[in-house]
Amino acid sequence: MAQPQKYVFVCLNQRPPGHPKGSCLDRGAAEVFNALRDEVGKRLLTSVKVVATGCMEGCLAGPCLLVVPDNVWYGGVTEADVPLLFDQHLAANGDGEPVEMLRLEPDDFCA
Amino acid sequence: MAQPQKYVFVCLNQRPPGHPKGSCLDRGAAEVFNALRDEVGKRLLTSVKVVATGCMEGCLAGPCLLVVPDNVWYGGVTEADVPLLFDQHLAANGDGEPVEMLRLEPDDFCA
Repeated sequence: MAQPQKYVFVCLNQRPPGHPKGSCLDRGAAEVFNALRDEVGKRLLTSVKVVATGCMEGCLAGPCLLVVPDNVWYGGVTEADVPLLFDQHLAANGDGEPVEMLRLEPDDFCA
Repeated sequence: MAQPQKYVFVCLNQRPPGHPKGSCLDRGAAEVFNALRDEVGKRLLTSVKVVATGCMEGCLAGPCLLVVPDNVWYGGVTEADVPLLFDQHLAANGDGEPVEMLRLEPDDFCA
């Protein structure tokens, strides 16, 4: 079968308690990951693949997501944002537009 | 600090023994992941970030890698390929060219 049209990479990295950068997992990434997977299931989408990752260096702005091949980064995503991400971007069949209010810029990264 | 210029996503998914798709981990992905990380260290590269992922659906052609923002997919990568991947593509400061013999095409995916 063919490749998914869009990949959503979701950082699930966790750092020890008290680490100054914190981590995406401490900021709720697991809940966002599960909500993304659930939304794919509910919508019966074979065009979108949600993939867990290690640290992508968006720590301070986590939970941090990357949509490929669009090269759109999102930060501070919550479960409540997930339906909008699909309606406007991920499930929009090639007409998708990024959700601007959730986008990360290069300076938001914490390497 | 600024964002890395290139991300290398490396599938480290493992399936149970005997699964018909096999998995990237069974095909040597951990060794490739470690070799990529070691190469970043040896070359003191801050421009390249190697990130572990779950399944990206390149299973049958694993170990499977994705380079972002280039949107170049590689399959069947071995430790021995890693220096060439850096010389020709990942560490080439904007002039990088994909290593054609390792590229995956959409029909190589196994969803």
